[in-house]
Amino acid sequence: MSTSQNQQIQILKAASSKINEVDFDNVTFGSVFTDHLFECDYIQGAWQTPTIKPYAPFLLDPSARVFHYGQAVFEGMKAYKDTNDSIWLFRPDENYKRFNKSAVRMAMPEVPETIFMEGLNELLKLDQAWIKKGLGNSLYIRPFMIATGSGVMASPSDNYKFMILLSPAKAYYSGEVKVLIAEHYSRAANGGIGAAKAAGNYAAQFYPTSLANQAGFQQVIWTDDATHTMLEEAGTMNVFFRINDTLFTAPTSERILDGITRKSLIEIAQKEGIAVSVRPVLVSELVAAAKDGSLKEIFGAGTAAVVNPIAGFSYQEVYYELPKTENSYASLLKEKLTNIQNKLAEDSFGWTVKV
Amino acid sequence: MSTSQNQQIQILKAASSKINEVDFDNVTFGSVFTDHLFECDYIQGAWQTPTIKPYAPFLLDPSARVFHYGQAVFEGMKAYKDTNDSIWLFRPDENYKRFNKSAVRMAMPEVPETIFMEGLNELLKLDQAWIKKGLGNSLYIRPFMIATGSGVMASPSDNYKFMILLSPAKAYYSGEVKVLIAEHYSRAANGGIGAAKAAGNYAAQFYPTSLANQAGFQQVIWTDDATHTMLEEAGTMNVFFRINDTLFTAPTSERILDGITRKSLIEIAQKEGIAVSVRPVLVSELVAAAKDGSLKEIFGAGTAAVVNPIAGFSYQEVYYELPKTENSYASLLKEKLTNIQNKLAEDSFGWTVKV
Repeated sequence: MSTSQNQQIQILKAASSKINEVDFDNVTFGSVFTDHLFECDYIQGAWQTPTIKPYAPFLLDPSARVFHYGQAVFEGMKAYKDTNDSIWLFRPDENYKRFNKSAVRMAMPEVPETIFMEGLNELLKLDQAWIKKGLGNSLYIRPFMIATGSGVMASPSDNYKFMILLSPAKAYYSGEVKVLIAEHYSRAANGGIGAAKAAGNYAAQFYPTSLANQAGFQQVIWTDDATHTMLEEAGTMNVFFRINDTLFTAPTSERILDGITRKSLIEIAQKEGIAVSVRPVLVSELVAAAKDGSLKEIFGAGTAAVVNPIAGFSYQEVYYELPKTENSYASLLKEKLTNIQNKLAEDSFGWTVKV
Repeated sequence: MSTSQNQQIQILKAASSKINEVDFDNVTFGSVFTDHLFECDYIQGAWQTPTIKPYAPFLLDPSARVFHYGQAVFEGMKAYKDTNDSIWLFRPDENYKRFNKSAVRMAMPEVPETIFMEGLNELLKLDQAWIKKGLGNSLYIRPFMIATGSGVMASPSDNYKFMILLSPAKAYYSGEVKVLIAEHYSRAANGGIGAAKAAGNYAAQFYPTSLANQAGFQQVIWTDDATHTMLEEAGTMNVFFRINDTLFTAPTSERILDGITRKSLIEIAQKEGIAVSVRPVLVSELVAAAKDGSLKEIFGAGTAAVVNPIAGFSYQEVYYELPKTENSYASLLKEKLTNIQNKLAEDSFGWTVKV
């Protein structure tokens, strides 16, 4: 942190804004970026001058470690604008801590808090016109770090690039989500990197997910790789199961991401008087509950979709359709959480932070 | 393959060569690259014009999928020059097949054989001055493919870049290699991507390997993630164990890379009359054999180091030093294999292919 504490952020403004080219009501998640990005390089042990500059492609050596050995981590977070045009972040300290936890696991340097937070705040102020007001609107934030050092020796890089991108996001209705319970493929190993937001964890899921897509399922719920008997997470979301009136979700572990939406929903549910049980959930329990009618809901929880209700699941070639539930916990928790995030309800948890 | 079969490779030659700046006798593995590289882009389902051009950095969008989701695969292979200045490859078909197997597992397009092989051959001819003659000299070849499509949605990219880099390599004496048997961290999950040369597999090992380094060990031998009782591979090498006069090595699986050096050594050993047993090897067997003196050798097998003898291993805080062996299988097999690769001995296996 020492090198950066008193460093000014160098700001290079774009000559013009692209904002008028964007249809904010019909934007595809993650496809459009704001006028500027934040960048800070780490060269041979020292963080360089943090910079905000126009969003643009950058040069990288063909032998850069990120291309060959996947040394890369990221975070996903959101900014919101209240009715008074103030900008708010949701639990940014949690993303910051998790980012550095991921960095350590991938043998990358930790990003100093001043670089991460001041960089983010200054970038948000500069591109604040891109944050739209109202429930369902937000600005998705993508901090990430890649190994830029050249050379194809299989060892950690000396040089890294930390960047923050901003992308306008609309609450999306993802349609009816049917999921496949994984019986062969896996997301994470014991003693592996499943708890890190490491780039390689995601590409590893693309092929098994494409097989699920071809079979008519939008997502996969991963199970433990050794026995495929325990429900873990959905890759970009943690998963909750409602059996009768209790919410179940797997404990986080070195295989399961410590989701910020997940832990926020647990707290909201408890405040609402909903029984929450954090313990390993067996596939066999889920199947039994689906068969006897006690399984009321399944939903995913993550920054992008917030809460994603699941219509049904398939396991061993049998599809289990979930009942339509009045008083859905998914709807209740989503409403409570998004109202806090959008500053439309009181934040008794102290989760929202003004930029 | 259709789009490329009759496509000429576009060749842009470097204005001058860097070759005179290189100290070929003291080159660090993977740090120096030749004057040119081969490149072919895949855009929305179609391979574009293959190109050979001067080695140089290239532009990429900050939201390119490779940075965020680790969609990247590679191969490692070598070219050799015989006494008549002919250039030879070692089992290039095996690398080509494995490259595409890795690509499929990472939801990436397969590279057509003409693009891969003709690109490699033309590049080698153009930069052939970089291949030095004699035992121990080779040119390391790094084919790789990255997801270049922009957008941070967690799904496979539409666009990819396939490249081949060349790097002069010297046989290296890595010093005395002591290894740590993994007791907590793991390399691969059942149903994961351990059998693919996917970028993310490598960065995942950097942190546990750095812990091993700090404890005085140069490498880690990974064990199965569920029980940590079975010996798997060393991350950049497969591993062989000699107990009495039998060589043991784990069968390849979805967790263990199907190493080309590994399978070549098995065939050479069998031809030399050495008993080879391909079956799961337990850590407990290794410890017992070390204790009763029947463990004679451990060595790694991979393209970069070819054969890497191991001096000893640590397990549960106990270090087991291996005996000095006359008639070492590691030395014999390395000599036989490198003589074939360098065209200094007859290649009765038909492994070497002239460029």
